[in-house]
Formats: sequence, structure tokens, C-alpha cells
Amino acid sequence: MKRIAVFTSGGDSPGMNAAIRAVVRTATYHGIEVYGIMRGYSGMIKGEFVRLDSASVSNTVQKGGTILKSARSLKFMTKEGRQQAFDQLVNHGIEGLVAIGGNGTFTGAMIFEEEFGIPTVGAPGTIDNDLYGTDYTIGYDTAVNTALDCIDKIRDTADSHDRCFFVEVMGRDSGYIAIPCAIGGGAEIVMIPETQMSTDVVVETLQAGWKRSKTSFIVIVAEGDEEGNATQVAARVKDAIPQLDTRVTVIGHIQRGGSPTAADRLLGSQIGIAAVEGLMNGMRNVMAGIIDKKLVYTPFIDTINKKKLINQSFMRMVEILSV
Amino acid sequence: MKRIAVFTSGGDSPGMNAAIRAVVRTATYHGIEVYGIMRGYSGMIKGEFVRLDSASVSNTVQKGGTILKSARSLKFMTKEGRQQAFDQLVNHGIEGLVAIGGNGTFTGAMIFEEEFGIPTVGAPGTIDNDLYGTDYTIGYDTAVNTALDCIDKIRDTADSHDRCFFVEVMGRDSGYIAIPCAIGGGAEIVMIPETQMSTDVVVETLQAGWKRSKTSFIVIVAEGDEEGNATQVAARVKDAIPQLDTRVTVIGHIQRGGSPTAADRLLGSQIGIAAVEGLMNGMRNVMAGIIDKKLVYTPFIDTINKKKLINQSFMRMVEILSV
Amino acid sequence: MKRIAVFTSGGDSPGMNAAIRAVVRTATYHGIEVYGIMRGYSGMIKGEFVRLDSASVSNTVQKGGTILKSARSLKFMTKEGRQQAFDQLVNHGIEGLVAIGGNGTFTGAMIFEEEFGIPTVGAPGTIDNDLYGTDYTIGYDTAVNTALDCIDKIRDTADSHDRCFFVEVMGRDSGYIAIPCAIGGGAEIVMIPETQMSTDVVVETLQAGWKRSKTSFIVIVAEGDEEGNATQVAARVKDAIPQLDTRVTVIGHIQRGGSPTAADRLLGSQIGIAAVEGLMNGMRNVMAGIIDKKLVYTPFIDTINKKKLINQSFMRMVEILSV
Amino acid sequence: MKRIAVFTSGGDSPGMNAAIRAVVRTATYHGIEVYGIMRGYSGMIKGEFVRLDSASVSNTVQKGGTILKSARSLKFMTKEGRQQAFDQLVNHGIEGLVAIGGNGTFTGAMIFEEEFGIPTVGAPGTIDNDLYGTDYTIGYDTAVNTALDCIDKIRDTADSHDRCFFVEVMGRDSGYIAIPCAIGGGAEIVMIPETQMSTDVVVETLQAGWKRSKTSFIVIVAEGDEEGNATQVAARVKDAIPQLDTRVTVIGHIQRGGSPTAADRLLGSQIGIAAVEGLMNGMRNVMAGIIDKKLVYTPFIDTINKKKLINQSFMRMVEILSV
Repeated sequence: MKRIAVFTSGGDSPGMNAAIRAVVRTATYHGIEVYGIMRGYSGMIKGEFVRLDSASVSNTVQKGGTILKSARSLKFMTKEGRQQAFDQLVNHGIEGLVAIGGNGTFTGAMIFEEEFGIPTVGAPGTIDNDLYGTDYTIGYDTAVNTALDCIDKIRDTADSHDRCFFVEVMGRDSGYIAIPCAIGGGAEIVMIPETQMSTDVVVETLQAGWKRSKTSFIVIVAEGDEEGNATQVAARVKDAIPQLDTRVTVIGHIQRGGSPTAADRLLGSQIGIAAVEGLMNGMRNVMAGIIDKKLVYTPFIDTINKKKLINQSFMRMVEILSV
Repeated sequence: MKRIAVFTSGGDSPGMNAAIRAVVRTATYHGIEVYGIMRGYSGMIKGEFVRLDSASVSNTVQKGGTILKSARSLKFMTKEGRQQAFDQLVNHGIEGLVAIGGNGTFTGAMIFEEEFGIPTVGAPGTIDNDLYGTDYTIGYDTAVNTALDCIDKIRDTADSHDRCFFVEVMGRDSGYIAIPCAIGGGAEIVMIPETQMSTDVVVETLQAGWKRSKTSFIVIVAEGDEEGNATQVAARVKDAIPQLDTRVTVIGHIQRGGSPTAADRLLGSQIGIAAVEGLMNGMRNVMAGIIDKKLVYTPFIDTINKKKLINQSFMRMVEILSV
Repeated sequence: MKRIAVFTSGGDSPGMNAAIRAVVRTATYHGIEVYGIMRGYSGMIKGEFVRLDSASVSNTVQKGGTILKSARSLKFMTKEGRQQAFDQLVNHGIEGLVAIGGNGTFTGAMIFEEEFGIPTVGAPGTIDNDLYGTDYTIGYDTAVNTALDCIDKIRDTADSHDRCFFVEVMGRDSGYIAIPCAIGGGAEIVMIPETQMSTDVVVETLQAGWKRSKTSFIVIVAEGDEEGNATQVAARVKDAIPQLDTRVTVIGHIQRGGSPTAADRLLGSQIGIAAVEGLMNGMRNVMAGIIDKKLVYTPFIDTINKKKLINQSFMRMVEILSV
Repeated sequence: MKRIAVFTSGGDSPGMNAAIRAVVRTATYHGIEVYGIMRGYSGMIKGEFVRLDSASVSNTVQKGGTILKSARSLKFMTKEGRQQAFDQLVNHGIEGLVAIGGNGTFTGAMIFEEEFGIPTVGAPGTIDNDLYGTDYTIGYDTAVNTALDCIDKIRDTADSHDRCFFVEVMGRDSGYIAIPCAIGGGAEIVMIPETQMSTDVVVETLQAGWKRSKTSFIVIVAEGDEEGNATQVAARVKDAIPQLDTRVTVIGHIQRGGSPTAADRLLGSQIGIAAVEGLMNGMRNVMAGIIDKKLVYTPFIDTINKKKLINQSFMRMVEILSV
């Protein structure tokens, strides 16, 4: 393998640059040339290729976002688009790809490989941590710490005013971000898609807390919760307990950015190295991940079809710790 | 003067604890006893008084929120409520008050003084910086830095995805928070209540930027802007430029909390000392502030009736810097 | 078991308060009374016991340091001291202990148990991560992130001035803190006790970098490195390369404090719960830890005698990533 | 004026990039071309000139350090060196300079102007805030907040272990950084070059605190204090009070880096604009500064010869607040 390319696709996440840097330097270390493809599959089709060397990625490990940018590409969902992408890769002499992203990215890579035979190794880049095949995704630890930092600030105001804050955090269909925010943020309640907690239970828990003379409360609502978003839940709780002074904060896109934590820089680096060395060893259609401190390559088909289950003991922890 | 009390009222702001600490230690230094009144006028009426000494405020200077808590009191708006508050002060032997808050707080203190003769010196505690009689209010610098930190994170995502973010910051009827966020956050546009900027101008500016090949944008919207909130402005801009990938982030209550910056700890400390020494010198119905590095006492009537104008040159700065 | 006590001992670390809080609330949840012992074994001997309930630990999860304080106790190393400690425990009706600390703490607990039969379950509280029986110790993740944040700032100056910084991080006899600081901080070289890297190799690596036109460098030196501390290494390198503009920064105690990260709050909470439930299940002389996401109790004798080996692949990562 | 150049010189400081960005965009706004000179006078002599346009400074406002780098130039101290620098400026068609730095930088510019007639307007870029002609220098607010953040972390450990920390902060011959660190960090004592405080007084103050049952202490030592550095002071105090558990932390270069605060971004932006518009208005040999919210141009001769006095009331504040 003489020349590979790397790109980021889907939502950006902190640590993607650490992964890109590791890909570039590992390839360089092994005497392989590297190109960066701008804006994911969209740039692949348009031929937005940039030669990257060791110096290109200096001083990027600490940066949020992705220096290769990201974009959605409807065109890559068509055979014609993929043909153009393939032609671009051939023209640039690219023999393998490192795709940093999530399941949408990997699905595209898998179809592409089937049609054109270009091998791809994936890196799990998403703040949501909802990918099977790795304990943590690149960006998750940073997103949790950012959200928690916001919750710490909100608690100052919640305490000062004896209020009940409903804080909405990201995580798509999973509670991975919500859970450590609840435990680490000293929240009284956490609502996640993986469990069925009705608004009635929320109301009862808050009322029980009040009786134990708690005066301020934090309820973490995962964006994908089946009871609705934080604004909707807060409205229903306010109906049930009109004297409760409620406020809603949606942390939103703040969670996606910022300088990556140590853990995300390390993880991004480990996986970037593993992706390149995986390609060198003939792998394709697999995602590099770390499970129980060990490097694991999981077939895309499994990362896409299998669900990573949340540790149920965490729900019990929230209950115990909010006693 | 042998015994005074201090309380916080209105929205909490970072640095209030630095001010409380300074009040307590200055009084102690001068041999005056201090009580803290919990929950502002509400606690004054209910008699929630706590004896504070030097050790009570140890390790509080770095804390957000207010250790004395804050609350609204409808009852203090009645003569009967104020009579009860006065009785409580008499019972506790309180001869003067330090009120940390904003114009609502000072209006109450002024009426109270007229009726019952209890002297109050005010300290400007609000993140909004909209108080006449001081260059900066306690909490403003922290709120700006917190909002800016959020904007830095948002820019990572805006850049990575070539998006246009509309970021709503606090500030009530003023653009004091919005302006440094725009200048320091590298925003292309800032919308504040003090100026009339129509959505049409926003649309034109974004289109002009696009022509100069800018691909990502940040528009700061002050919550009090006459064109509406960030969500409303974003929707209208999206109608005008459908191909623009827009997102909205409302920073919200995150801005109110957190450990105060150096400037807010210093300001809170200076004003806390000045408030106590003002009381000792027979002052009443004035707010302590710092203008051009000098300590200034401004009559409540002026802080309430006069408007602190925003420096118009800042608007020109945003225009120049987004060239 | 009706009443237990918790204490912190040895160097403080961020997340200890999360562990204390979890101990208190878990005991409360199970109907067990809890006392906090101030200043470790020293306070145990002197009888500095404080009754803790759920509210006692409100708003502590985000705090650095330890609310129970820590101290060394020479007296506990004597039989007489331990007798006094035991008498105090008996007087307070304490039937079991949770000890948050490191190997010194656990050694004391083990001897104490042998002599007086009081069961102790340990929690690994140290920033150094050098304890066998857990993937991570409570405080480690925070210390690494704090050090990394310092290194990010130092890199700004290193780059601006084309300098070579030698940055000393903590870690006692291990390189656990140094390694992620080097990988995440984009350092060119890392010197840790677990490997033999002579100053000559450092000099060669820097000179090789210079030839590749690198102009600024960061060398991470673990405090326990066999080549000496950062100041000593820097002096020797400066002798060998006089034209190198060298600077030394010792991060020092800054690494020990600060609000814990999400990971440390979660880990402290998990282990705090596990420690209490371990005691309830009759355990003694074991430390609760998390290995590969699973709760593990390891005999004190093993945490003391066995060495947790650093992942050798990390050294290779530093080499590849500084290409 | 058709073409100007900007450079940074002396120690780097956070906010320099905001100033560079403002220079570039203001010139562009007014139709003037801008070059960046790398590495200060050194790069001027060697001809390291880079054309800068609006896009060159995108996404730099939040960055620490200086994108133009900084270096010392012994050669510029010679007539021959300055002749070469002048020739380079002539070759590049540069008609005016913006120099971001301190008094060393301005002295060079003044001599250079006398000999060759090239006008320079200066911008105060240093963390030390020891420049006459501006309330604050660019980088000062960030340095203070960084140091304070370190002190907050140190206090966690000081409290947990009942220790006395001696913390050395920067500031060259002034106490500008030390003072707000002491007030905002809740320090018991501050030692600055502007006042004579003997170690005896430090000892007495600590002993008096002990009698009031304070158990932990923080002493801030400005690096330029006449009693020596923190290590020396701590050793002498330890001699006098052997039972005091003392520790020393030298914050060092960490203070120089990092993303600038809102205040430094705003100040850098204001001064960058003012520097260019000053040049356009025919100014030379002056430094742009902000005094009492107003833009002021001060002759270099005054910034060099006059001393900005520290507000003496701050010393009184430290005394009162550590009661």
C-alpha cells in the first residue's frame, strides 16, 4: 500500500483531529503517502484532495472540530456519485481509506467497497457513544465533560434560587451522555431513551425530594427520550406542581465543540494508528475500537446492526446517589 | 454603627459571594457585627437571619451563585410586608443594610428607607451590566467569558460544517453581553436592542460574506433585540437564503453561573468594602460602583432613572473586524 | 452492620468527594449510619468524628480536595496509636471502615484489621494511577487533563518563541500521568521511570527534529524518571545543544486540585457505592476497583505487592506520533 | 499610506493575535495592504515578510501566543542591522509599522524612526501590565485569570492538608499580577516589589492567623519581590515556623499562554484598530492604549520613562479581606 486517504463524515466531534493526525503520522512513519479528503464523501466526488505530511498536522491535536471538514452527500447515495468518487480515488492513486465517522459513514463505505473494491477501515467519531465495537467513541468524553461543566454552572443558579432545572443533553437515541451528566452533576432524575420513566414518576420523585426539604433540583433529559424533550417534560411537570419554579436549558451544539479531553486525544490517536495499520494488514470493512483496553476491529455490518447496551447499573446509581 | 446585614436579591451573578465576603470581613475589620439575610426581602420578612463572621465566608470567593440565596418577594411590595421586614431588622438590632442586586432591589430599598429610615448602600450585582453608576456590574465579566467560551466551541462546529449559527446571549434590554461576544468570538453580525438592524441587513451581510467565500458564520443575537430572539431571526434568514445551513443555540442560564473571573472577584471585593465603609460614613440610598478606576457612590434614583449608554464605537468595531 | 465510617488519607485527589458522597448516600440508602473521620488516621486517634447524612454531602461532587481532609499520622504506626484509634471506633459504635487513599493507607488498614478485627474496604484515591487492582485511580483523569491544559498553554509560548520546554509532571514512580500528557500534548519526547531513556537519546531526537525543521519542542519528564527531574535534564541537554532555547516548567501541585472530570466523578461514585456494599457483604482488606468496566475487589496484599504495568504500546505511540 | 507591516516582539502574550487580526482587517477595511513580519526585528532584518489578508487571520482571535512569532534580535541593536531592516522595508514598500510588544520593542522603534524615518505606532503586548499609557496591557487579564485558576486548584490541596503554599506569579518588577491573584485567590499575604514587606511580617501574619485557628494559608509572591522568590521566602518562613507544612508552586510559563479572555480579545481588537488609524493619521512614536475607557496615544518616550504606579488601595484590600 503506497497511498491512502483519510476523511471525516457525519457530525464533527472533538478528537477527530487527533485521529487525523495519527493517521497522517502513522502512514508517514511506515512510508505511505496520505491525502486528506475535504468534506467527506462530497469532497471525494468533487476531488477535494489535499496532500498531508507530518507538518500539516502539527498543532492540531488540541483542536475541536475537524480540519478536513464534514458534510452530507446525497450524491454519494447514488451509483453515479460513487462512480465519480471512485474515479477521483483512482486518479489520485489512493489504495485505501480511513473513514472517521459513524454508522452512516460506514454504510456508505461498505456499499462502496462492494461496488469498487476500495478497502476502508473506520474510526468511531461521534459524541454520542452509540456505536457497537468500542467502549467509547472519539468525542464522547469531551462532550460529557462540556455538558457537565454547563450543569455545574446551572446548579449555582438552581441552588441560589431554589429552582428546578430541566437540562437537555445530546445523545440521539441513547442515554450515554445523559447518565454521567446525571451522576457527575448531582442530578435528582435522569430520563433516557433506554428506560421508560413517565412524567408521573418524575413528579413523584420531585415531590418526595421536596418533603425531604430539598429545594433545588436538576433533571437531565436525553434528547431522544420517549417522554419528549426538556421543554415538553418541564411543561408537564409544571402543570402537575405549579409552585415549582422551573427552567429549561438546552445545551445543544456547545457539546459538539471545544478542545478534546486527554481521553479523546489518546483514543483518537490510538484508533488513528490502528486504522492505518489495519489497512496495511489487509483489513477492510471494519471499524477500529478499544474494548477493555484492547484494540478490536469490528465488521461494519456489526457496528451497524448491533446495539451497544447501556450499563443498567448506572440507573441504580442515580437512584442511590440522589437519596 | 454596631450591626449591619447583607443580602442578595434579583438574579444571581458570579462575584456576589466575593462581595458578601468583602462585606463580612470589612465589617469585622471595623468591629461591626454582620448578619446575612437569606433569600433577599423574602427572608427579611420571615426573619431568616444568619450571624456571619470571618470564617463563615472562607473559601467562598471562587464560588458562583450566592450563598445567601435570592428570591422574589411580592410581599415586600406591600406596606404590611415592609413593616414585618422592619420589625425583624429591629429585633436583630440591624442598623444598616448592604443590598446586592439591581434596580428592582434598589427601588425596594429606597421605598423602605423612606418609610422606616433604615439606610441601605447598594452593590451592582447582575450579569447584564445595564446599571448606571458603574463601568461594570458584578458578574458581567464572567458571563461574557462564559458565553464566549460557548461561542468558541460553536465555531468549531460551524467551521467544520460550513454552517451559520445564530447564538442568543443574555443582557435583557442591552447589548452589553452581546458586543464583546461578537468582537471576541469573531462573529460576522451582532444584533442588539440599542441599534436597529433589520433582518434584511443580516441577509445582505451574509450574502456578501458568501461572495467573499466565507463559508461559516456566527450571528450574535441579544435576547432583547427588537427583531426577535435567535430562533425567530434564524427562521426569517433561512426563508431568505434557503441554501444556508442554519442552527440556533440559546446559551441561557449557563451564563449566570460558574466561578467568577478575576475581574469579578476584584470588583465584588472592592464594592463590598466600599458598601460597608459607605454605611459607616452615613451614606444611604446610593450604589457603590467603579467608574474609570475610581470609587463612586451614585444615588439609587439615578441608577434607576438614568440609562448607561453603550459605546457606539463597538458597533463600528464589529463592522471593521468582520471584513 | 449498623454504622460505618469513611475517611481519606494520603495525598488528596479530585473525585475523593464524589467517593465520600457515594459512601454516605449508599449507606443511607441501605439504612446504615455513617460518620466521617477528619484527617485520616490522625483524626481517628483523636476522635474527630462527624455524623454525615445525605444533606451533608450535597453540592460536593464537583469539588476538588477532600472535605474530610487528609494528614499523615506517625502515631498510627505505633501499637499505642492504633489502640487509641480502635477505642474511638468502639466508642462511636463503628463496625466497618471505608478508606480512600493509596497503599500507605491500605497497609495501615491491614495491620489494624489484624490487630483489632475492624473490617476495611479501600477506595483507590490518588492522582498517580499506580495502584494494582483498578484500571484507573480516582483523581487520575483530572490530573492528566489539568497537566494537559497547562501543556497546551506552554505550547503557545514554545511555538511563538521557537523554544524547547521541559515540562515536569507528577506520577511518583510511574509514567501514567506523563504518557497521555505526551501523546495528547503533542510532545516530541517522554521520559518515564519504566523505560531507560538516556539524555543522549533526548539530545539525538531533538537534533533530528531540528533537521526536519521542527523549531519548537516539548519534552515531558515524569517526576520519578531515573535521569533526574526536568531541571536537571534540561541543564544536561542545554550543555549538549547550547543554541537550544530551553525552559523548564514544573506543573507541581496544580495537578492535585481542581474540580474532578466526569470520569473521576463517575469512578468515585461507583467505587464509593461498591465499598459500602462490599462491607455489607462481609468483605475486608480489599480495595474496590474497576477493571474492564467490571467491579473488582482486590486484596490489599495484592494492591501493595503487585505492580500495575504500563502499556508498552504507549511508548511506541509517542515515537510514531512525533514523526 | 498604501502598505504597512505588523510584528510582535518581546515575550508573547494572549491577545496578540486579536491585535494582529484587528490590524489586518482595519487596514483591509481602509484599502491598505498589510504584511506580517515573522519573529520581530530579527525577521525584519532577514526579510521574513508574509502578505496578510482578511482570510489570513480567520479563526485566530481565540488563539494564544502569536502567529507572527517573536524573537530577540541582537543585530537590530547595531546600526548595520537596522540598515538591513530598513532596506527590507523599502524593498517591500512598507510605509508604516505596527509594533506589538513592550518597552524594549518601542525603544528599538524609536531609534529606528530617528535614523530612517519609518513611523511606528505601538501596541502594549505583555502579560505584566507594567506599561505607562494604558490601564491594561494585552494579555494581562488572561495571565491573571490563568494564575488564579491555578491558585484555586492549589487551595483545594492547601485546605485538604492544612498547608501553607507559597505561590510565585510573574510580573517582572511589578505586583500587577500578584495583587488580583491575592484578592481573588483568597490569599492571606501578598509580597510585591512596590512594597517592603519583610519575611518577619510574613511570619507574624501567619502566626496570628494560626491563633485565629486558620489552618491553611496562601502567600502570593511576585517574581520581582525584593525578599527573593517563593522558594527563598518559603525556606526562611519554614526556619521561623518549623511546624508549618510549607509547599512552593511556581506557576511560570503557564501564565503566558492560553486562549485570551474576552477582555484581552476586546482590548487587542481596540488597540489594533487604533494603531492602524493612528498611522493613517500621521502618528509615529506613540503607543495606543485605553485609559478610563478612552483611546489614548502616549509617546514612546513616556511609556519608557514613566512608571505606572500600582493602586495603593489594593494593599489595604488584601489586609482587610484576610481578616
